[in-house]
Amino acid sequence: MDNDIIIKTAHAMADAARVAVLPYFRAANLDAEDKGVSGFDPVTQADRAAERAMRDLLADTCAQDGILGEEYGNKSSESGLTWVLDPIDGTRSFIAGAPTWGVLIAVADETGPIYGLIDQPYIGERFEGGFGRSTMTGPQGTRPLKTRGSRPLVQSMLFSTYPDLTDPTETAAFNEVAAQVQLTRFGLDCYAYAMIASGQIDLVIESGLQPYDIQAPIAVIEAAGGIVTDWQGGKAHNGGRAVAAAGAEQHEAALEILSKY
Amino acid sequence: MDNDIIIKTAHAMADAARVAVLPYFRAANLDAEDKGVSGFDPVTQADRAAERAMRDLLADTCAQDGILGEEYGNKSSESGLTWVLDPIDGTRSFIAGAPTWGVLIAVADETGPIYGLIDQPYIGERFEGGFGRSTMTGPQGTRPLKTRGSRPLVQSMLFSTYPDLTDPTETAAFNEVAAQVQLTRFGLDCYAYAMIASGQIDLVIESGLQPYDIQAPIAVIEAAGGIVTDWQGGKAHNGGRAVAAAGAEQHEAALEILSKY
Repeated sequence: MDNDIIIKTAHAMADAARVAVLPYFRAANLDAEDKGVSGFDPVTQADRAAERAMRDLLADTCAQDGILGEEYGNKSSESGLTWVLDPIDGTRSFIAGAPTWGVLIAVADETGPIYGLIDQPYIGERFEGGFGRSTMTGPQGTRPLKTRGSRPLVQSMLFSTYPDLTDPTETAAFNEVAAQVQLTRFGLDCYAYAMIASGQIDLVIESGLQPYDIQAPIAVIEAAGGIVTDWQGGKAHNGGRAVAAAGAEQHEAALEILSKY
Repeated sequence: MDNDIIIKTAHAMADAARVAVLPYFRAANLDAEDKGVSGFDPVTQADRAAERAMRDLLADTCAQDGILGEEYGNKSSESGLTWVLDPIDGTRSFIAGAPTWGVLIAVADETGPIYGLIDQPYIGERFEGGFGRSTMTGPQGTRPLKTRGSRPLVQSMLFSTYPDLTDPTETAAFNEVAAQVQLTRFGLDCYAYAMIASGQIDLVIESGLQPYDIQAPIAVIEAAGGIVTDWQGGKAHNGGRAVAAAGAEQHEAALEILSKY
């Protein structure tokens, strides 16, 4: 399939997801279910409506491609390409009203994501990377995405969604990196990856990820000059543990610590 | 002074602060100084430019009023009213590019804040409370502000800016409340107070606050039906430890724990 058709379809999907999601954001009586047996893992009607809207567009224009979505599972690929969708990454932020959740759309081939898009519907921001593109559009217009580049940990800003990672060993690994950086902050969900691509921050370290949580961030960050791997330096697109970095020096320094765990 | 003049002046100040601040947000080579002797407490040119812009307007229209500002100190009041200004609450979020910092403007008399405004310039959101007003304007228009109301801790969403409060005792107090709530999240700075007023979340617990950090949130939350006190249930407008709540039940339950510390 032509790259331009992929790009056009991805933007149309993000537009459709915005329309589907925004009526639910900060609406009274948000219908948050608990889909997990342990912990608090809300799924909203918005999540499902957005994924349905995106799948409808794919059925029209990219029927041969596979789909891996958070809410409606897998559709196998006949083209070699798979669309990887997280209709609302950051459902907890969503129900809390914080504008740091996002719609994640990636296109992957057998090597991993080759194009991705992080969209924040409420603010009206879209971060895009792949096929030679690396741009954001938002309230202040369109600008290129470029990471901050290489710098030591002592000058780095580190983010994770929550101070407790998936297990205590992972939390200890994170804390060992955090002890060496200039600033550690929490709470941004996928928005933190967009801030690496935007040249604002240096590192995001997370664990317990699903493929649909990380594939769009990988494409966007790599297109902006950054690096995303697992904690051993290998590919991260299958989920699990990930470290995203603005440049080589902070990535290597973080890996030196994380790879021991 | 007429309330309408206060309201009009506050909005003009917030408009001026937006103009002063936005050119610096996500600008390359942000000039972040370290103004603290311990820890990382950046002050940007944006912070100072915004406070100067706000003070200039007050000099024109409210010259008899006092000013308490983060960057340029105190001006004593000849009218009984004092404007309490934090040009950028959440400077760490600001330098990280996260849209959860805000401009805080409050008007206080001898009893505490009587009117307040929380503005997020990048998103274009403004939360306002006092003099019978309780509204927000943002990307989706104007709507009234109203807290979620009373509910038990087990159904409550709790926020703080960072998991470590000012000292370990305060962190322990926070964690004891966190252990009883449905969901705990970090990272929103003043935006979390706006989310209480908006009916999204239940509790914000913080410590080490300055008066200019909390006076605008107090006015906005109280106008929306919420409660803000110190950890003993007393007035919080002089700063220090604060607990903000969407309703009486979660406030009392949090106080029962916090007041032991």
